[in-house]
Amino acid sequence: MEKKYNMTLSCPMPKLDFDVITLGHGSGGLLTHKLLETGVFDLLKNDLLDAKHDGAVFEIEGKMAFSTDSYVITPIFFPGGNIGELAVNGTVNDLAMCGALPKYLSLGFIIEEGLPMEEFWEVLVGIKFAAERAGVQIVTGDTKVVDKGKADKIYINTSGVGAVHPKANISVNNIKAGDKIIVSGNIASHGIAIMSKRENLEFESDIESDTAALNHAVKTLLDQFGEGIHLFRDPTRGGVATVLTEIAEQAELGIEINQRDLPITEGVEGACEMLGLDPLYVANEGVFIAIVDAKIEKEFVDLLRQQDVGANACCIGEVVGDHPKKALNNGIIGGRRVLNMLPGEQLPRIC
Amino acid sequence: MEKKYNMTLSCPMPKLDFDVITLGHGSGGLLTHKLLETGVFDLLKNDLLDAKHDGAVFEIEGKMAFSTDSYVITPIFFPGGNIGELAVNGTVNDLAMCGALPKYLSLGFIIEEGLPMEEFWEVLVGIKFAAERAGVQIVTGDTKVVDKGKADKIYINTSGVGAVHPKANISVNNIKAGDKIIVSGNIASHGIAIMSKRENLEFESDIESDTAALNHAVKTLLDQFGEGIHLFRDPTRGGVATVLTEIAEQAELGIEINQRDLPITEGVEGACEMLGLDPLYVANEGVFIAIVDAKIEKEFVDLLRQQDVGANACCIGEVVGDHPKKALNNGIIGGRRVLNMLPGEQLPRIC
Repeated sequence: MEKKYNMTLSCPMPKLDFDVITLGHGSGGLLTHKLLETGVFDLLKNDLLDAKHDGAVFEIEGKMAFSTDSYVITPIFFPGGNIGELAVNGTVNDLAMCGALPKYLSLGFIIEEGLPMEEFWEVLVGIKFAAERAGVQIVTGDTKVVDKGKADKIYINTSGVGAVHPKANISVNNIKAGDKIIVSGNIASHGIAIMSKRENLEFESDIESDTAALNHAVKTLLDQFGEGIHLFRDPTRGGVATVLTEIAEQAELGIEINQRDLPITEGVEGACEMLGLDPLYVANEGVFIAIVDAKIEKEFVDLLRQQDVGANACCIGEVVGDHPKKALNNGIIGGRRVLNMLPGEQLPRIC
Repeated sequence: MEKKYNMTLSCPMPKLDFDVITLGHGSGGLLTHKLLETGVFDLLKNDLLDAKHDGAVFEIEGKMAFSTDSYVITPIFFPGGNIGELAVNGTVNDLAMCGALPKYLSLGFIIEEGLPMEEFWEVLVGIKFAAERAGVQIVTGDTKVVDKGKADKIYINTSGVGAVHPKANISVNNIKAGDKIIVSGNIASHGIAIMSKRENLEFESDIESDTAALNHAVKTLLDQFGEGIHLFRDPTRGGVATVLTEIAEQAELGIEINQRDLPITEGVEGACEMLGLDPLYVANEGVFIAIVDAKIEKEFVDLLRQQDVGANACCIGEVVGDHPKKALNNGIIGGRRVLNMLPGEQLPRIC
């Protein structure tokens, strides 16, 4: 996967007269300007950003979606990505989950004093490439610097806007008994990748975060199936179990999934076992859950499997009229258990 | 000013089964839901927020503006406001400076583990009232919690969108020699209020932050003067000097202001002298600079003075063809000096 490695080779850091970011770089004064002019604006260049006003001005016809997320993940570099890519993909995906075509993102940095400029550059390059892959532009931003020790290198907020797909009608109110529950790819990779990096664990297989933009796949599916798609949700923090529980509660319907149908790599499954984690509660950053009309299930899965992010897509269960507000998991060797929202904090700072 | 005191009296905190915010409240799971359901959603209630999807969906006709800011101010409670009010007003003002009518905000919390729920509640109530005063809705949000010591109680990102005023044509490219420079109110209050609180300084007069929403005044002015207004900018970090320097550089024109015309209270001026600070470089949070056609100067100032936030508005100088890219300040007893962008970091974490 070209995206993961050596991104900075194609965008070398310019020569600068400073090596680390200082409080002055967050002053809004001369040093902030120097920081931004040394390469940030060039790297993320587009006409709207070039205007350098307090905000960006543009037009979005028809219904639009608006979303925000802050990223506080530690470590900021991890197998499969960095906090910059994650911040772009995460907000792109939140917009896509609304049935929108993401267009413009904002970028708010909270940087810890002393962050090596090289690391900041690597994050920026991650942002650049993630934005290009997703087809979005960074159009407005903000840079703050906090005292040493008062952040883990960097926190990033991205907010975003996009035009709702004209054929989309995404709402938990559209879900009905009989609908099928599709998951777009292998689950639990992100959480396990972060944990293995943080705890210095080594597994037989290299486990990487699944961070990826889901918007292109979502657009293709909406083009084809429109209102047949009732809901999209991305199971990030709290994992698949938390999202399915939320959906059951909001829709006031039951949900049943089958453990044996859950797509997961052997490596991730083995790591979960070793760590005593249930993969249903582990975070994902490149997976969505779709709830679709039963009539389109097969075609939907077929088309999704043709997309980069959907090769391992499958149907994992359905919406039922029984046990409203509860999501159940049918075990492989019989037995069923109720899913819940993640009760405590399995792995803090996962995104 | 009713807004400043005892806001929580009218919105008492509900009884909760926890006193402080823990890492689990940022898990995206059960505790996050409990935190949001115990009052956050109620306090900020509106139809778009109630949808509780990954983003909010709405329509904005015509041109729109989009802006973002993160707030890392310390302390989070200060004379004249708190970080919540500041976060709402700041992004509202950024949108207004684009000539837009702010409509919807996102709200991203990064909370330090251990933050007393009472303090969080007070911040939330500040957000609620600031949003009401500005006439904007909080429509989407995100809550993260970081380990104790890894943030100063709370950082907040707000991003916002609004419809550009149909009569607005705000651009640095519209500025021309002869234009007048108007400042909307007394300068340097915010920076001095924060510094006095942080350093436990006592001045003879109580100095309060000027944090306030500027959008209503901006709308009234745009209604009346439309394209006669060439630029709005709010002199936050870096103060009036930094903003005027930026404008001169971007417009490739000269700027001249007169020290004697600068509106400033005696208390703030005295405090600046005592602290060795130039008020032109001190942060403001409820003041804007407008650059307007000379023909409308007097009417503009008259109308602005009728607005809550504009009582002390006045013309401080003009745009000139001489010394392009430089802003000069004519001293009270003669002599002039070049203004610059704030060179270092006068007062970190001011917003």
